[in-house]
Amino acid sequence: MTTRPLPNAFFKPQSVAVIGASVNKVFGSTIPRTLIELGYRDNLYLINPHHKEIEGMPVYAHVTDVPHAIDLAIVIVPFASVPDVIRDCLKKGINAVIIESAGFSEISPEGAGKENEIKELIRGTDMRIIGPNCIGIINTHDRFASTEINFNELREGNIGVVAQSGVFGNILTDWAPTQNLAFSKLITIGNRIDVDETDLIYYFADDEKTDVIVLYLEGVNDGDRFFKALNEVSPRKPILVYKSGRTAEGRKAATIHTGSISGEDDLYEGMFRQTGAIRAYSFQELFDFARVFSDEPLMTGPNVGIVTCSGSLGVMAADECARLGLKFPALHPAAVAELNDQKPAWMKIGNPLDVGPSGLFSLAVNAALKDDQINGVITFPVVPGTTVKTLEREGLNLELLFGDAVEYRILSRHKPLLMFTFGGAYWMHKVQQIFGGAFTIVSSPEVASRALWALYSYHQYRQTRNR
Amino acid sequence: MTTRPLPNAFFKPQSVAVIGASVNKVFGSTIPRTLIELGYRDNLYLINPHHKEIEGMPVYAHVTDVPHAIDLAIVIVPFASVPDVIRDCLKKGINAVIIESAGFSEISPEGAGKENEIKELIRGTDMRIIGPNCIGIINTHDRFASTEINFNELREGNIGVVAQSGVFGNILTDWAPTQNLAFSKLITIGNRIDVDETDLIYYFADDEKTDVIVLYLEGVNDGDRFFKALNEVSPRKPILVYKSGRTAEGRKAATIHTGSISGEDDLYEGMFRQTGAIRAYSFQELFDFARVFSDEPLMTGPNVGIVTCSGSLGVMAADECARLGLKFPALHPAAVAELNDQKPAWMKIGNPLDVGPSGLFSLAVNAALKDDQINGVITFPVVPGTTVKTLEREGLNLELLFGDAVEYRILSRHKPLLMFTFGGAYWMHKVQQIFGGAFTIVSSPEVASRALWALYSYHQYRQTRNR
Repeated sequence: MTTRPLPNAFFKPQSVAVIGASVNKVFGSTIPRTLIELGYRDNLYLINPHHKEIEGMPVYAHVTDVPHAIDLAIVIVPFASVPDVIRDCLKKGINAVIIESAGFSEISPEGAGKENEIKELIRGTDMRIIGPNCIGIINTHDRFASTEINFNELREGNIGVVAQSGVFGNILTDWAPTQNLAFSKLITIGNRIDVDETDLIYYFADDEKTDVIVLYLEGVNDGDRFFKALNEVSPRKPILVYKSGRTAEGRKAATIHTGSISGEDDLYEGMFRQTGAIRAYSFQELFDFARVFSDEPLMTGPNVGIVTCSGSLGVMAADECARLGLKFPALHPAAVAELNDQKPAWMKIGNPLDVGPSGLFSLAVNAALKDDQINGVITFPVVPGTTVKTLEREGLNLELLFGDAVEYRILSRHKPLLMFTFGGAYWMHKVQQIFGGAFTIVSSPEVASRALWALYSYHQYRQTRNR
Repeated sequence: MTTRPLPNAFFKPQSVAVIGASVNKVFGSTIPRTLIELGYRDNLYLINPHHKEIEGMPVYAHVTDVPHAIDLAIVIVPFASVPDVIRDCLKKGINAVIIESAGFSEISPEGAGKENEIKELIRGTDMRIIGPNCIGIINTHDRFASTEINFNELREGNIGVVAQSGVFGNILTDWAPTQNLAFSKLITIGNRIDVDETDLIYYFADDEKTDVIVLYLEGVNDGDRFFKALNEVSPRKPILVYKSGRTAEGRKAATIHTGSISGEDDLYEGMFRQTGAIRAYSFQELFDFARVFSDEPLMTGPNVGIVTCSGSLGVMAADECARLGLKFPALHPAAVAELNDQKPAWMKIGNPLDVGPSGLFSLAVNAALKDDQINGVITFPVVPGTTVKTLEREGLNLELLFGDAVEYRILSRHKPLLMFTFGGAYWMHKVQQIFGGAFTIVSSPEVASRALWALYSYHQYRQTRNR
């Protein structure tokens, strides 16, 4: 299979047909309303031989009846009718089709037969198909989606996501705003009878809205093409991958789920390592990495500075950094002297640096950020809830205690600055006020370490490849 | 070192002296107010040669000046003065002392010298010391704490926690209510010059308010005693352990942090496996496990049922279950037949069972819970936020869609039932309404699998040991 560029109609169509649009509450029945809300009323064509009108719009029996050009078809008819629909779309000259219907190879041999029939139909034509068994595309910058979505809650971003599954992809878009994640596009590929993860790696490589490529895969369609794509695209943009279906049972579940046969895990591990792709080991870690690569510069050396209010969190992060070969050089002697001048007797200046409740968090973070020997900084600001309330009662500004977020951001322009914190609901709310967007927040001390390692190893990979 | 029972005065003292009580805003200065709020005004004695009155109470120069019996002393004077304070406490006949002051072996040889001096002082006496460099004890059932704490937000529970560090322990108590975690007691041991993790394993073994023992350790004080305690106590109560300081760098940080030298990680791994202690690999996993052991029955066989609305989450959990040797038997033929009758064409009945948006979640969970071949159930209810809002607009009750939580709890009395979900803020809020306390919620699909494995392997361990 060669890699043909995807029609732009997938991502920002001029006109859309919804084939299988229905007044009944079935899967996909909200799509016409969504498209109308997105401004497509005048370029939207609803197709269903059993209806005359939906949402006040005329309904055509067949897509071939529409007296206007159509550049994207969204198909939601039952699986058995899909080949006939594809025949109509070919007649109509539609080059971009998203099949959202399920019930194909993931369910039965009959469904697999229909997939093969469709593949045969489009062979040698200009038609590209996404799906079946997916929700297609969400494009935040151009406000287009082939599924019901609330764009008001989605921020425009630079993270391009490929997910295999429809439901998972859909929930990701709900979850993203709560995680401070901003996508450029999210594309679910389902059973990928045509467009697959490799096509999308190439698409995102050239998509100027996308800086970070994120793949959630249960298996790879064509290993050789995939390897080649990783190898070609990795030097240009970071590719983050979470590959499930690692065990036989997981693969069995994946087969049922999206009809994909996962390959052996060791092969993937080797492939990712060779090509500079960054592997995550859970979906949460995948999106922690995505946030970090989206918001932070790469790390140009192995030296980490850790500043923590809790010694325990420092130990956890140091463990993981050390396991990955990252280093903890001593801070610059001038900074050590300054900290020694101001520190209470119970505090010891080291790296990791446990400032406890000394109030020296800000001084220590600034020292680490300014230090030429330190390539990346992890911070753990934590404060007991009772202390937060006492300080506020006394009129003390927590922002002052934790330093100037804007100054941090300026100092960290060329150096990643990550943060993990935890505590009560009130503290977690204050965190947003105090740190704003100055720190990239990750979900555990260990992930902070692994994210720095990923930024450093990707930097090394790129140095080697782009030499 | 032998294991002497700890004085009950540590956990529920009749009278307390705060030595180093101060009007200045220094570490520990909020302790007198906290104790007054906890009802100790009439049995509280404040000690400080430089003050006459604090919080309207008289202040004694030395604890030996107090004309009443004292059964617990909380010490917050600077490290250099602690040996003199201990001498006074010995004179006064106080058997329980919590030293919260820091600056000892974790900071300097001088501090280490003071620790040795204190050890010598109490050798052969009845005095037991917790600390230094800690915040001592929080006892939810008896509402006693040796640190400032908001009891209104802490639920009484059955999880007994040993944490090494003061700040970390303090933040844990803020975090616990947001994680639906309820502690019996939380004890921080700091540099443990006397009372150590082993003493507390034995204490919790006999504490009738504690069913689950949770240890966060950066190192072990005395490996032989620790091993013996795990071995003796594990058959009675589950012991969950997170051991950091796994690498040389982590150990270096731990040494600075609480003066402990961590042992080699492989030794610990073997020790935990031999003794049935359950090891977690992050603090979040440790407390996920704690919640699961606190709220769920053990798992009596290796057979898991997974019911999911997202195929992807099912694959992730299946991967981890399979890696750990757990099995996925087919559901009972009668249940399969019933599900086949009701399922839409795109759905396939298997295990893991992906019900997607079929509305069959409740039927499937009930089938798995009633199935004698299934020993534990993992569920992933997820719903796109737009769907939630559409359903609610149409007057559909989400509780109906997801089934009767109380019925689940009845069916799962002898079978663990875990849940992971994610999504937008509105869905995460609805989850509490829909599922209430019926499902034990964990923080990732993988941790759900590992928690079931922990429940099963602990069951097996106990069967072998208690035979």
